Amino acid sequence: MVREDGVVVTLVMYERVGFEGRRPSPFSWRIRFALAHKGADVDYKPTRFADVGRIEKLSGQKFVPIVVDGSTVVHDSWNIARYLEEKYPDRPPLFGDEAAVAATRLINLWADNTLNPLVRLLISADFIRCLVPEDRAYFRSSREKAFGRTLEAAYADRAETLPQFEAACLPLERLFAEQEFIGGRAPRYGDYIVFSVFQWARLGCPHDIVPPGSQLACWRTRMTALFDGLADRFPAYPS
Amino acid sequence: MVREDGVVVTLVMYERVGFEGRRPSPFSWRIRFALAHKGADVDYKPTRFADVGRIEKLSGQKFVPIVVDGSTVVHDSWNIARYLEEKYPDRPPLFGDEAAVAATRLINLWADNTLNPLVRLLISADFIRCLVPEDRAYFRSSREKAFGRTLEAAYADRAETLPQFEAACLPLERLFAEQEFIGGRAPRYGDYIVFSVFQWARLGCPHDIVPPGSQLACWRTRMTALFDGLADRFPAYPS
Repeated sequence: MVREDGVVVTLVMYERVGFEGRRPSPFSWRIRFALAHKGADVDYKPTRFADVGRIEKLSGQKFVPIVVDGSTVVHDSWNIARYLEEKYPDRPPLFGDEAAVAATRLINLWADNTLNPLVRLLISADFIRCLVPEDRAYFRSSREKAFGRTLEAAYADRAETLPQFEAACLPLERLFAEQEFIGGRAPRYGDYIVFSVFQWARLGCPHDIVPPGSQLACWRTRMTALFDGLADRFPAYPS
Repeated sequence: MVREDGVVVTLVMYERVGFEGRRPSPFSWRIRFALAHKGADVDYKPTRFADVGRIEKLSGQKFVPIVVDGSTVVHDSWNIARYLEEKYPDRPPLFGDEAAVAATRLINLWADNTLNPLVRLLISADFIRCLVPEDRAYFRSSREKAFGRTLEAAYADRAETLPQFEAACLPLERLFAEQEFIGGRAPRYGDYIVFSVFQWARLGCPHDIVPPGSQLACWRTRMTALFDGLADRFPAYPS
């Protein structure tokens, strides 16, 4: 199919869009980086909560990102990354051998089940401003239900949550003292998974959750420099 | 060199020994499994705290496990595993490609910096009985200094620590719902790293820290069955 700019593309990616064109979804950032890693031409389709019906019709479930490749529709960021690896076997690898895929899966589940819930607590009171106004009421009610308290109360507990998050990041801090990337000497999908959590926070909250000068901060800087500054191609936190 | 049983071996491993022949070190268990994985013949040298001088003379540092291979002395479990992989390239791989090594390193640091400190809090009040009596005073004072409270006080906080540990294990619980081992279809060094933490707890504490029937419990059962029940070759918790 032909993209708006005239480039012929085979892939279409549907991803959540926020306030004034922001890209608020960590899961979509993983796939944006994975697509850039593979040098794939893509037509990005920004979607809103109001588009859930369209997404459901297309993929049989409600969540973005989804990637459409002709008649193939792939949902869930992990499945999409695996799909891209199979589709582009001659481009730079996102994973590695079978053991690397298996270990990366643990890193994915760690990012989603350990890092993500803490970041969610830390940023949600700010992050709501990155959503389009009509999505904010749903965001507030669903998050407050999950947290068992208001966004403002979660924000007030920040001084308690931040040390928990720093403790959870200790394996990363130690790792980056030894090696440049989770993938070793070059970034792999494991880096994109973990970076997506930090990217979500850096665009979704005006307070930095990473200690300045840390190894983690240095890695984040290396990550934001990738692909001609892909991480900064969309608006930052609203001023 | 010739081992006591007459088998000619090239490798010697020094490892901590506890009460009545127990093997109380999680780091040594990693290497025991790695050596079994490689099918290596080894002469195991049990060491006591009193042997620190000998260890220091041999390796230039105070900690076991160390592995001696002729004139080569390797210390630190990670370095030993990497050494074994290089020494036995034609035996079953402990890691995989470079990306697998890099990702396994993150898993190692996660086990050491996230799982290990919580297990240490959970088991230490019991674990002290697995040490030879003359090592217990040092263990108590060093642990109590690290915890900022008595072993008994840490034990009393068990009801608070256990849910934190279960939360930290959530990535594993989800992983084993999808794949048999951290290594994928077969165990790799990543499995031995993480298993060593659970092995430490299962031999060092009479209370199970893994929920019965969980995916984690099933994986632990698969791990304890490996290498003809290697995990049960030494005495269990003193009755």
